[in-house]
Amino acid sequence: MNKVVILITLCLILYGCSPNDKSAGIPERVTNFVILFADDLGYGDLGPYGHPTISTPHLDKMANEGMKFTQFYVSAPVCTPSRAGLLTGRYSIRSGLADDRFSVFFPYSLGGLPQSEITIAEGLKQKDYVTAIFGKWHLGHRPDYLPTKQGFDTYFGLPYSNDMSPPTVPFEPLKKLFPPMPLMEGDEIVEEEPDQTQLTKRYAERAVRFIGEQKDNPFFLYVPFAFPHIPLFASEEFRGKSKRGLYGDTVEEIDWAVGQIMDALKTNGVDQNTMVIFISDNGPWLSKLQEGGSSGLLRNGKGSTYEGGQRVPAIARYPGYIPAGTVSSSLASTLDLFPTIMSMTDIDLVKDRIYDGYDITSILKDPNQTVRDEMMYYRGSQLRAIRHGNFKAHFITREKPYDPNSDEVHHDNPLLYNLNIDPSEQYEISADHPDIVEVLILESEKHKRSIKPVENQLNKIEPDKLEALLEIYKKYFNK
Amino acid sequence: MNKVVILITLCLILYGCSPNDKSAGIPERVTNFVILFADDLGYGDLGPYGHPTISTPHLDKMANEGMKFTQFYVSAPVCTPSRAGLLTGRYSIRSGLADDRFSVFFPYSLGGLPQSEITIAEGLKQKDYVTAIFGKWHLGHRPDYLPTKQGFDTYFGLPYSNDMSPPTVPFEPLKKLFPPMPLMEGDEIVEEEPDQTQLTKRYAERAVRFIGEQKDNPFFLYVPFAFPHIPLFASEEFRGKSKRGLYGDTVEEIDWAVGQIMDALKTNGVDQNTMVIFISDNGPWLSKLQEGGSSGLLRNGKGSTYEGGQRVPAIARYPGYIPAGTVSSSLASTLDLFPTIMSMTDIDLVKDRIYDGYDITSILKDPNQTVRDEMMYYRGSQLRAIRHGNFKAHFITREKPYDPNSDEVHHDNPLLYNLNIDPSEQYEISADHPDIVEVLILESEKHKRSIKPVENQLNKIEPDKLEALLEIYKKYFNK
Repeated sequence: MNKVVILITLCLILYGCSPNDKSAGIPERVTNFVILFADDLGYGDLGPYGHPTISTPHLDKMANEGMKFTQFYVSAPVCTPSRAGLLTGRYSIRSGLADDRFSVFFPYSLGGLPQSEITIAEGLKQKDYVTAIFGKWHLGHRPDYLPTKQGFDTYFGLPYSNDMSPPTVPFEPLKKLFPPMPLMEGDEIVEEEPDQTQLTKRYAERAVRFIGEQKDNPFFLYVPFAFPHIPLFASEEFRGKSKRGLYGDTVEEIDWAVGQIMDALKTNGVDQNTMVIFISDNGPWLSKLQEGGSSGLLRNGKGSTYEGGQRVPAIARYPGYIPAGTVSSSLASTLDLFPTIMSMTDIDLVKDRIYDGYDITSILKDPNQTVRDEMMYYRGSQLRAIRHGNFKAHFITREKPYDPNSDEVHHDNPLLYNLNIDPSEQYEISADHPDIVEVLILESEKHKRSIKPVENQLNKIEPDKLEALLEIYKKYFNK
Repeated sequence: MNKVVILITLCLILYGCSPNDKSAGIPERVTNFVILFADDLGYGDLGPYGHPTISTPHLDKMANEGMKFTQFYVSAPVCTPSRAGLLTGRYSIRSGLADDRFSVFFPYSLGGLPQSEITIAEGLKQKDYVTAIFGKWHLGHRPDYLPTKQGFDTYFGLPYSNDMSPPTVPFEPLKKLFPPMPLMEGDEIVEEEPDQTQLTKRYAERAVRFIGEQKDNPFFLYVPFAFPHIPLFASEEFRGKSKRGLYGDTVEEIDWAVGQIMDALKTNGVDQNTMVIFISDNGPWLSKLQEGGSSGLLRNGKGSTYEGGQRVPAIARYPGYIPAGTVSSSLASTLDLFPTIMSMTDIDLVKDRIYDGYDITSILKDPNQTVRDEMMYYRGSQLRAIRHGNFKAHFITREKPYDPNSDEVHHDNPLLYNLNIDPSEQYEISADHPDIVEVLILESEKHKRSIKPVENQLNKIEPDKLEALLEIYKKYFNK
């Protein structure tokens, strides 16, 4: 048994005190943090969010033992900027990861999350946390931008999306363009074109091993799974297992991995002092049809600034801190994880930059608390919509974010929806509430004024590949 | 403490036996049954089904302590035939409640559920259950058809829908036609135009009182709530409480009522030997816009034979019998409650009629068991679709069931969907599976051959009201 646990146990026996009771003058327990991050999983794709045929008993259990969020947002509806927001607590436009041609990093990208950005891993280093990422990075794969340059001691995984690979990319011209998919250990490529059916299992194994090795140290574990991003792969044990088909197989294998990680926390005696949060990086990729997921009752999916693009499933568990079996409809975001984790570990935020996240510890302790009242919806560098309280104004909409023939509509008079009453964004009410539209316009302008120009990291592409990539990009990755 | 509970407690202490272990030769406990039935509540409208802003802590708790069903069907997408199916275990076409002009009973209807039909209440009378219904009946309001003629000892509630009332019906010609809304106690009208804001509370109070009075007897309690059927009313305590607006207020008040009833079971020492099931009578009334609910990821709603019309939220709790915190995606139906309850009480089914329900006790004990593999989708007398295993064939579709300008489409080549992979019925696959289409056609014909002509109960209308009703019906209740 680890010493912290022994101390807490003694404390509980002798004083009947709460494990987090600072006022009692007892050394508080150190909190470990685990962030489990699915890729392209929709709001409607898990048991606790009502999916009928994807079986997720471990996530069901996690929700029963923790808190389920129903208005939890990522900071962008696609991969790279969403991940930047998660790790830094800042909209990606502040770190140069917001471009209108290249929405994410590609194999021939030269840029990355600038080293000047501070990630959760770097923040926690101030309190000597051991840090690891097992999974997809997608914040720059050149030497200067790898996870090891952003506070992670250990890295094992794919540096970008699992479809950026000659054998699996579903578009012929890209097969010829893309280099073999690398699997990395630290800063080294250790395999090319790894067997994708084994990825979820390998990430889970590494996570379990890490927990066992670090159980006596404070740790931060970040597991960004490869799936259910296409192309879909599941191991033999899970292939054909789900009623929902291959998409469901990959989600059920992730659920299994969650179970493995929760078990490891228990087995190693740290599950009572570890906060685990499960989230998705953006909504479901609807244009992939049956190979894409479901945003449930929300409108649209990945790539869209309708709710289906940015509102995701989110479940947090931390026994004794987060009340069990609760549901919070308070607004929250991956942007909030950075300041929340820093608050929980008494680490001061560096004051030279703007943070878009809020400390949501009060919500974690009481689901009815309110902390944030706004959310921005970015697509590339465009602020396309804003939520303030119950209301959302759309300045730019696009019904099919991945169809080049689907035009952007710029609304001189923004569309207005009341998201609490109308979560599916069906009933446009701007005519009834010109005053609210006005407030939302002012809030969006205030936010825009806070954005300072920075170097664009996403448009830095190997020069001899740029033309070809742009050409192909227009046809396939027309995001 | 009631004697049965003392016996079970002794049995558990002395023999460590399961309370339902027949083989041990110990007297088994008597099971009470409680059916809680919402009106027009959609698949997506509760916490356990992912609704973001309707707070349902008591139903969340019930799901955590029991089983949540994700492929649970009612037997028709509108009120009257759905209720007939629930109580008799038979499609309503077998009891004459299937008409193509009048889909439900109206104030001037003369017919009702025939006395020859056997309801759950009548079945349980064979074992001397005390029976009560507090809420909406809607199976005939003439003296011969009231609940007291169908096995219920006690009745308190509205005999038909809460919109069939001059002050509240949202259509001028009906205001002049309809008589005052009756509130009944047994066979008597005890109030006219009762205050609808008090209905949920009064039904809950009666249910709680009944449990207290009958705790020493085996009982069957049926609580068909008035809401969230329009017009929406909530008591002062709940009005304005839900983030979802008035619709949410009514659902949150029902959730409160569920909590009151669960508390009463505990307080009276019978919650361990009572099976409680919460269901909705059909999908959400989408044409009512914000006053209608959400079918989550399912297509369409009330009145439709797409999934949103007939697949409903369903949560069952019976400690020690139903495993806690489980999810079943096995097919089940309100049709199954009659044979299941009879099986659990060792009551033989009368053999002179066809039952469409199955004994699903095996699913209640193990969510992965499969019992039924088919479901029929009726609209009036038309069999519009059939599900067999994963697959559903549509013979007739209509996109807007309540819009007179939305035409029925008859499909010579039925539409085919795989509901397990494609729960939202988006990807039509008949061309790939002509063999499966063939099987579904054969199954539908087999089913149709089992239907015998019976007297139509729904087209019996007071002669001097028929013309006016038909005229208005065409405009408003165009179901």
